[in-house]
Order: sequence, then C-alpha cells, then structure tokens
Amino acid sequence: MIIVLKPNATEKEIEHVMDRVRELGLSPHLSKGQERTIIGVIGDDRLLANHPLRAIPGVEEVVPILAPWKLAGREFKKDDTIIDVNGVKVGSRKLAIMAGPCAVEKKELTLGIAHEVKAAGASILRGGAYKPRTSPYSFQGLGNEGLDYLAEAKRQTGLPVVSEILDPRDIEYFLEKTDIIQVGARNMQNFELLKEVGAYDKPVLLKRGLSATIKEWLLSAEYIMSRGNKNVMLCERGIRTFEAQYRNTLDLSAVPALKALSHLPIIVDPSHATGKWELVAPMAKAAIAAGADGLLIEVHSNPECALCDGEESLKPAKFKELMKDLKKIAEAVDREI
Amino acid sequence: MIIVLKPNATEKEIEHVMDRVRELGLSPHLSKGQERTIIGVIGDDRLLANHPLRAIPGVEEVVPILAPWKLAGREFKKDDTIIDVNGVKVGSRKLAIMAGPCAVEKKELTLGIAHEVKAAGASILRGGAYKPRTSPYSFQGLGNEGLDYLAEAKRQTGLPVVSEILDPRDIEYFLEKTDIIQVGARNMQNFELLKEVGAYDKPVLLKRGLSATIKEWLLSAEYIMSRGNKNVMLCERGIRTFEAQYRNTLDLSAVPALKALSHLPIIVDPSHATGKWELVAPMAKAAIAAGADGLLIEVHSNPECALCDGEESLKPAKFKELMKDLKKIAEAVDREI
Amino acid sequence: MIIVLKPNATEKEIEHVMDRVRELGLSPHLSKGQERTIIGVIGDDRLLANHPLRAIPGVEEVVPILAPWKLAGREFKKDDTIIDVNGVKVGSRKLAIMAGPCAVEKKELTLGIAHEVKAAGASILRGGAYKPRTSPYSFQGLGNEGLDYLAEAKRQTGLPVVSEILDPRDIEYFLEKTDIIQVGARNMQNFELLKEVGAYDKPVLLKRGLSATIKEWLLSAEYIMSRGNKNVMLCERGIRTFEAQYRNTLDLSAVPALKALSHLPIIVDPSHATGKWELVAPMAKAAIAAGADGLLIEVHSNPECALCDGEESLKPAKFKELMKDLKKIAEAVDREI
Amino acid sequence: MIIVLKPNATEKEIEHVMDRVRELGLSPHLSKGQERTIIGVIGDDRLLANHPLRAIPGVEEVVPILAPWKLAGREFKKDDTIIDVNGVKVGSRKLAIMAGPCAVEKKELTLGIAHEVKAAGASILRGGAYKPRTSPYSFQGLGNEGLDYLAEAKRQTGLPVVSEILDPRDIEYFLEKTDIIQVGARNMQNFELLKEVGAYDKPVLLKRGLSATIKEWLLSAEYIMSRGNKNVMLCERGIRTFEAQYRNTLDLSAVPALKALSHLPIIVDPSHATGKWELVAPMAKAAIAAGADGLLIEVHSNPECALCDGEESLKPAKFKELMKDLKKIAEAVDREI
Repeated sequence: MIIVLKPNATEKEIEHVMDRVRELGLSPHLSKGQERTIIGVIGDDRLLANHPLRAIPGVEEVVPILAPWKLAGREFKKDDTIIDVNGVKVGSRKLAIMAGPCAVEKKELTLGIAHEVKAAGASILRGGAYKPRTSPYSFQGLGNEGLDYLAEAKRQTGLPVVSEILDPRDIEYFLEKTDIIQVGARNMQNFELLKEVGAYDKPVLLKRGLSATIKEWLLSAEYIMSRGNKNVMLCERGIRTFEAQYRNTLDLSAVPALKALSHLPIIVDPSHATGKWELVAPMAKAAIAAGADGLLIEVHSNPECALCDGEESLKPAKFKELMKDLKKIAEAVDREI
Repeated sequence: MIIVLKPNATEKEIEHVMDRVRELGLSPHLSKGQERTIIGVIGDDRLLANHPLRAIPGVEEVVPILAPWKLAGREFKKDDTIIDVNGVKVGSRKLAIMAGPCAVEKKELTLGIAHEVKAAGASILRGGAYKPRTSPYSFQGLGNEGLDYLAEAKRQTGLPVVSEILDPRDIEYFLEKTDIIQVGARNMQNFELLKEVGAYDKPVLLKRGLSATIKEWLLSAEYIMSRGNKNVMLCERGIRTFEAQYRNTLDLSAVPALKALSHLPIIVDPSHATGKWELVAPMAKAAIAAGADGLLIEVHSNPECALCDGEESLKPAKFKELMKDLKKIAEAVDREI
Repeated sequence: MIIVLKPNATEKEIEHVMDRVRELGLSPHLSKGQERTIIGVIGDDRLLANHPLRAIPGVEEVVPILAPWKLAGREFKKDDTIIDVNGVKVGSRKLAIMAGPCAVEKKELTLGIAHEVKAAGASILRGGAYKPRTSPYSFQGLGNEGLDYLAEAKRQTGLPVVSEILDPRDIEYFLEKTDIIQVGARNMQNFELLKEVGAYDKPVLLKRGLSATIKEWLLSAEYIMSRGNKNVMLCERGIRTFEAQYRNTLDLSAVPALKALSHLPIIVDPSHATGKWELVAPMAKAAIAAGADGLLIEVHSNPECALCDGEESLKPAKFKELMKDLKKIAEAVDREI
Repeated sequence: MIIVLKPNATEKEIEHVMDRVRELGLSPHLSKGQERTIIGVIGDDRLLANHPLRAIPGVEEVVPILAPWKLAGREFKKDDTIIDVNGVKVGSRKLAIMAGPCAVEKKELTLGIAHEVKAAGASILRGGAYKPRTSPYSFQGLGNEGLDYLAEAKRQTGLPVVSEILDPRDIEYFLEKTDIIQVGARNMQNFELLKEVGAYDKPVLLKRGLSATIKEWLLSAEYIMSRGNKNVMLCERGIRTFEAQYRNTLDLSAVPALKALSHLPIIVDPSHATGKWELVAPMAKAAIAAGADGLLIEVHSNPECALCDGEESLKPAKFKELMKDLKKIAEAVDREI
C-alpha cells in the first residue's frame, strides 16, 4: 500500500501516519520526493482494509498495491481450476455448453427442450425455477415444482442441471435437486446468500453484477471460497453502459483479463447480455475465440410464448446450427466441444 | 404499448401479431405509415409484461407507453406521502436529517455520537449493525448486538433509529429494534428481501442500486408496496459512472424527476455517494436545494479509527456547522429543519 | 413518430398538437386508449427533427420510430459496401488487417515496422502523424513529416496507408499522402471535420466516440455520406464504462448489431480498446469471430521506447503469431486473410 | 510515480527499470515488500509521460502520484481566478448568470429574448450561431449572421455575449463579435481547436465532454492555458450514464471537487444536462448551493417553435421566477446575484 501525503503535510502528521501503520504491525517506508512525500507499507497491507487511513490529517490518497483477494487469485493457485460436475469437467479443454429455457414453465415443454439441447450437443441443462424479475407483476417462476421438473429432465437425459437460487432459506432443496447453484447478477453482492452457498461444496456459478468491477466480482467469489467452497465458476453476462441498442454490453475483455488474475473457470452468457436472439450466435462464437471455458445459452421451442425473455431465446434448430459453428471456432483455439 | 413492425413484415405476420394482442383481451389499433406499420395497443398493456412480443416474426420493436408501476406512481396517488416515524414526519415540510456512524462499533462510542447528532439537530439516528462489505476480510458489523446499542441510544436520546437489513431471516429483530428498516443499494433487487419487508408496515428506506435506473428503483418500491407496506422512502446514494474522482456520482436530478413520477419521500445520502468527507457538506446543501425531503449523513467522533468508511464521515463539530448552513438553504426553498 | 400525451391533456391541447403536425405537411393519426392518448405521425417524421414537440403543453413524450439516418442504413442499401483501397477490398470476404506503430517516430523505425507487418501478412499500414494526446505535454506527433515517412513506407512495401487527421486545414496533405483518412474517437462529433472529409471520395475510417451510441455513430457517418463521400468504414475501439481493468470496454456486440443496421464495413481496434498488449490477441480473435471485416492493430519493434501507447503494442514476432491464429478463426467463420 | 513490479520480476528486470528511470534524469527509490517490490520515482515524474514504463518486462502497474496538469491546478495558484468579461467578474462573489436561446434564429426574436433575460437579471447573453447537431439533417445554425445578431443584442442591452465555436478557421469573427468563446462538450478534446483559442486572451468557456473525467477536463484547460490564455472557465453540463430519464446526468459533485483541484471558475448548465425544462429550476438551485460560480440557462419566448432544444428552454416568465429563487439560495451560501 502506498500512502500519498498532501504537499503541506506537517512532520507531526507524517509521524502520526507512520505510528498508525506500526500499531497495525506493519513497517512504514518513507520516501520524500520534490513535490510529494509517500509512505510505502511493507507487509500484508490487507491488514489495513478496516482502517480508513485517508481520514488521517495530512493524507491525500491511499493506493493499494496488492490484490485484495487471496483464494481466487492466480498467485495463490497457478493451475486452472477444473470443476467436476457429474463428469462434466468445467474449465477443461472441453467446453461446457449449458443450454435450456430461461424459465422452467410446463413440465412437457421443459422435458422436450432438455432432449433437444442434449441432441444438439449441450453438456448441462439450464432453467430458472425461481426468477428474479424487475417487476412484481411479471411471472416469478414455478419454485420447487420447477426444480422437480429439472430433476426429472436430468433423469431422462443424464444432463446435470444448473438453476438460480434467490433466497438462502431455499438452500436444502437446491442442494438436493441441482448440480450447479447459480447466483445471479442481482445477487452478486448479496453477501448472506454468498456465505450460504459457500458453506457446502456444491459447484456455484457466480454471475457478474450489472455494474460490478472485476475486482468486486473476484471478491464475491472470495466470499464463497473463504467459507470453504472452492468450486466457483464465474459467468460474464454483460454490464450496464449507456448503449441502449442491446440489453447490456457483453464485456468479453473480462475473459482474458480474468484468466490472468484468477484460476477459476469462466463462462459467458450471450443471451442475457444482448437480450436479442439475433446477436446470440455471433457473441457465442466471439466468447469462445476470446478464451471462455463455456457458454450459457437460452433455448426455447416457442420463444413468442415463453413466460420470460423469449426475445433472446434460440429455437432448437438455430441452437443446433450454432453448435456446429462453435465446433469450428473451438478447434481454431485448440479446444473441443 | 406500441408495436413497430419491420418494413418487410407480411400481412400474415401483421395479422398474427393482432391476434396475439386480442388473445390477451386487448384491442390492437393498426396505423400504416409510408415506411413503417405500427400497432397501438389499447387497454392496460401491463398485461403484456409476460409476453415477449418482440419474439414474434415481423416485429421490430416494442415501445411501452404506460409506466410499469401502479402504487408507487404519482398517477395513483396525487398527494405526497408523509411517513410518520415515531413522530418524525418524513416527507413533510420539515426535513428529516438522519445522522450517525456508518457502522455501530463500541457501545459508548455509539451512544456518544447519538447524543452529539441529537444536540446538533438530527431527527433520526443511523447506524449499521449488519454491514455489506465488498471484501469478506472487512469488518462485517456487530449484528444483533449492534441493534441493541442503537435501541439503547434511542432510549437515551429519543431519536428513532434506521439500520440496514441484509438477510430476510433477521426480520424479527429488526421489527423489534428499529424504526426504519434500510434496504441497501446492493440489495435493491434482492426481491426476496423486498417481499419480506413488504409484509409488515414498518417504514422502509430503499436505497437506489448502484446502476439502477429510476424505473427499476420504482419497481423495487412497487415490490414492497404490492405486498401491503405503503411506508416506503427512497434514498439516492450515487450511481456508478466512469468518473473515479469520487466513489460514486450523486444523481441529484433524480430528486425532481422522482417528485414528478412518484409520491414517495426522497432522501439523499451524500456520504456514501461521494466517499469523501470534504464533499459531504456542499452536496448536502445541493440536495436540499434540489428538493430532497431529508438527508442520511455519516458522523463519527474519530473517523480515522472508524471500522468502516471513515473517509466519508464528518466529525460532530463539522456536522453541527453543516446543520446551521442547511437551515439557511431549507428556508430558501420554503422548508425547515 | 409517436407522440404520447399526458393523462390530463385537454382536447384543445390535443388539437393544437395535431395542427402543428399538419403544418409540417404530415398526417396525425389519433388513438385514444384507456389511460393515454397517442398520436401516430404518418409520413417522413424526420421532418420533425427541428421541431421540439415535447415543448408543446400536453405532450408527455415523443418516441421516434424511423431510424434518423438514410444513406448509412441497410434499408437504403441492401448489399454490403465494399471499399476499394488501392486494390485492398475492405468489407469483402477477405479481412483487412491494418497494422503498424501508434505514432510515426523515426524514419528507419517506421520503415522497419512496415516491412515486418507486410511480411506477417498485414494488408494496410497504420501510423499516426498527428496525435491527439490527452495532455499538452505528451508527444504530439511529427505532423507532415510523419505522413512523408508513411508515403515512403508505402512506396517500399506497396501497403496502402491509413493515418488520423485532426484539423480540417490539413486536408490537402492527407489527400495526397494517405489512402484512408482516419477520424479518431475524440473527433467523431467534430462535425466540421466530418464535413471536410465528406467533400472528397477518399476512404474514411470513422472511429466510434468514447461514449457514442451506435445511433450517434451512424449519424456521424451520415454527415460524411450526405456530403457525397460514400466510402466510410466504421471502427469500434472500445467505449468508456466504469471498469478500470482495461483502458476501455471493447463492445463487440456492436459488430453484429451494425451489420443489421448498416451496409458499411466494420473494423475493430483491440489495441486502443484494451490498452494492454496481453489482451490484444484474444480480442482480435473474438472480433473476427463476431463478424468484423478487419482489424487495426498496433505493432512496434521496441514498445518500451515507443513515444505513444507502447503498453498496447505487439512486437512483430507476436503479431506474426497472431496472424497465424487469426487465419484459423477466419476460416471457421468462412472468411480469409 | 510508483512503479509496481510483478511478483516474479527478476533482479535484472528491476535493474533495467531503474536504469530507464535514471536515463530520464530522475531518481528511482527501491522498496522491497514481502509480496511486491515497488520503485518510487523522485522528481518531476511528468517527464515520464512519453515513456510507456508498463511495456517494460517485469512491470505490473504504474501509479502516477502527481496531478498531470500544472497551470490549471490549485497548487500552482492558490487564489481563485476571477475573469473580467466586460465588467462582469466571473468567479467572484457575484454569480454570473448566462441566459438566452439555445440557437440564434430570427433577429427580432433574439433581440427580444436578450431584453427579457436582461430585465430578469441575467449578466451575460448566451446564443448559438454555429450549432453542433447530432444529425446532418438538423438546423445547423445561422453562422456569422447569428454572431451579428448577438453583437446587435449586446449593443442594445449591454450584456456581454458567449457563443460556441466549432471550427478553428472561424476564430477571427469570434474574436471580434463575442466576449466569451465557448468550446462545446463534443470538442473538449478537439485539441487543434483548443490550441487555437489558447493563442489569444479572449475568455473561453470550456464545457466538459460527455464522458470526460475531471482529469481529462483539466488537461484540456491546460492545453488552452499552456498556449498563453489564462482566462478559462469550466462548465459542467452533464455526463453520459445509463440513466435515460433525463438527457444526461448532471454531476454536481464536480463543483466542490474542482474547487479543491483548480483555481478556475466553474459554471453549471442545467438546461443541456437535463434536457427537460421542468428540471432546470431545481438543478439550477442545487448548482448554486453546491458552490458554482454561475449558470448557463436556455431561455426562449416560444419553446415549441425553437429550432433547437426547445424541450429544455424556460419561458421568460419562468426564468424571472427562477432568478428570484436563486437570489435566496445565493444568500444562503454567502453569494449574490
């Protein structure tokens, strides 16, 4: 950590800052420049996280040097993390394609889509049973009944299942019925929920918050990991910007940037990011080319009647076609589907 | 709702869209222009919220016309809502000044600050017992013990108390110990929590999410209100933008814009918005000038030792000075403190 | 265009709005709903662009329906535009790879890099002679001397040259010395410059402004095209968001979105977008996978001594390697390099 | 400047970085911490602006410590700058209220508005003769004829005149006809235009770019000042964010933040920021409460017929009323109108 002092900081103020640093068991290291004096803090400056040094008179700015996470970082673990989800190895050379309806609706419909995405080559089934909707008047999901349908679809197809949790009080049923628990964008900083899913070893898919920085996102992963659950996969799903042409702006630069900072697998969701089915295929291809370990794609056999997000769902035939194109891209970057 | 058709939409496609609208019990109204055909939907188009019309072939865009909320809207209730918090009338001519430490720490410290903000003229005591922190390694708050200290401070000063809830499982203790339950920015779209606080009539302070639009914010208020709790106050606390000079960008235009759209009281939090104590006073004044009904201000007697957000806390003497300045601004806009 | 009236708009106000529309030679089309009355405007509503209908009493909102551009739009011209730059066909099946130093510095250095990018397979040479720098104390470019070096590099390698113009007064030299004139992000809405480059038929590379919407960007292309110059190529180079991990956020969704809206070729600049050489290769691959028609890449033989943007420059050996990888991606999406 | 080295940086790499710093005439200062080694650079690190240290192997990050500007900074000049515009002292205790039509249209209309804003208490007349419009099909302004009308209005009312320049080739007429030359938001980084207006001592009103950081804005002021023109006033006019409820998000925190960083006067434009006349009055009051030195407000006697931005223009009667309210706010913050 670097503490930058104001140009007019007094000797007494400087001494006071140095004392505060020493009190915390760290060593201050003074450098006087022509226009500014700075204090370098030697030692694990994360100890200072709880202490607002900028509030001390004479201090102009505090610049952290170390990344604030440990377990999620590449420095902590050099090798890529590979998470085994009932035999599907997320983070391995083989890409994980998670596909299915946005929301679980009727049972037959869900089973039908599950068979279709399996036939097209998907490796994991996605489907929302509890739905976080912006409006209280929108369809809120089938709840546990929806999880039952997904479990039935898994029985029939063999595909592991990923579904989103909204309430820590629902954890038991999720542990029983799903293979990956999704924490959605709106809950990325719902820390009580993170602590809850961190208490088990069930794989977690942690979506990036709508305006979360990469640092905040990794710290949310750290919440889960510091509770003991190391099976975290990250999912980029678009950030909020000024551009209104698509629902969100898919931030694919996050993929290689995260690969450098962290060892966790990274999945991309082009469906929620763009909100338009026409853009899903090109962005899915781009995600794989950028180095993503997998995709989360919405597929629905009758999008115009979907109770949620039909605008962004691919029909099974389009999805099948996309899988063929993805195979070619995967090969071009030395991966496979 | 206006449905804009693609330039090459066929007669059959247009007919199909009209049929879908009629199936939902609404009347379509066709207008053929030179370059585009549009369909106006007569009736309560909120019925269409669950139906992805844009997924229908031939449809280019769907433009909603009615606001998606009901209870939170000015059209539903013309008069300003005034919420009675133990005698403090939030939303009335008299401004509600909520002040206190970011986090509740030691008991004596909390009681001391409570007496100081009361002496300076604050009407409500703020203090965090459960703290949502970006890093799992930061101080997470005292929990119920912190709520007990606040309740003791209330006993001693008579000031009603506002504190933030993080987990729906904690509701009972909040109902007992606090006068206003705060739902923080990170939980603005934690819909399960909104439903929980919506089930009682305890006043709720709903902070704006970091990247929430005004529409989404009012829909979150609608979640609470549609469950029966009409005592919602909104709190602007800065939005996330590209500017890194301050922690967030305080969006004061939201104040008059919300006054036009909604009847709910609106509070402004200049401390969290700016993250720098030097900016708190000017932005507090600006908020009142813009028409806010109250303020949420961090005050700490020893900011450099605060366990949370000391950088943005005013010392009691500065707060007292600010209260004098605010009195003048309040009078200039026909309000009082 | 749809004019939405306030719920309490009077008959007289409605009549006044209809009259205003008729005065402009357009036909108003009234639809009364249960909660709102709307007026659809039949005819080319672009005529209304100069008339602030929202300022008329009783009007709540004005919703444009037609895209505000003509010449740049896909509706105006169905086929993809292919621009011939000295034999390099930008927008064709063959990708246009523009590579070279950020700024033109020493002559020998420039010539050396030109030969290296040519050897690696680049089709166009890029290099800045006039540099728009945030600080007045940064290197501002060699000016016309730099253009001379580029022209010499073209003579030696046969590569056409692209360079950025900053001032309309420099147009003559640019017409003589370059093959494509670049209008940079900071000048995307420098309308006088757009008009100037629009007066010739020299190809223009129009970069997206740092916070320009796709609509504004296409309208800037329209400025150039409406002056007579149809040879416009668009260049996505990252937008400004809250994320500070990279310089800007590369918005690749713009590529397929633009392909639907416009017939103009689209180039992607991963170097300026990310500002970090480590991210250039993955994002270059992603851009091609998303459907871009070409790339703009910074290459420098000694990045740590570059006078501008060395952080994001690839060394020639890395660029060569990237070209091999791009060939594979290009084939996977049915393009060639 | 602090250079942070990678955890695995070799001794040789560290030595190489130190050598590079010494070559530039500066002193490196090594601090080895447990997890990171850093190099503090003693001396004027602005010398490093042209040298991409992050491109050197072993370097992880480069953190600037000194502000990159000189002349615009508070450290360079402690006292507030007061600019004399024909007797109106911008930056003094007395607020500068600049009012008038967005665009200069008919002569009589312009003169009429000038007399009305003067009568209401405005001190400077604003009006656009050259208009930067997003669409080439919108009204582009009257050009020099518009400047003539403004000069005539000045003759009749005595109000100094501010108008926007778009093209450096127009400088002569602006020097002759206006008292303040405005550089608009879209041209904040049109460096050739900045250099042009920097060559004279005519006061310049420099608007903040739509997505310009405060740092970039001050560097643009520095462009003008480093050419010799010290008479720069800054104008906050809203930044681009995700919020679509108003045209831009007025960033009032910039006012006190700039007051700390710079000695230049700061003006606020609530009309362009909000784009809605209903929001102009509350935001004008908030701006003064936040510490602004003046306002730029659009006034038009017939907004619905304005050729530009009628939606945000106040009628003269509303403006008069606002001036009365502003007087009260001004007094509350020890200023006068």
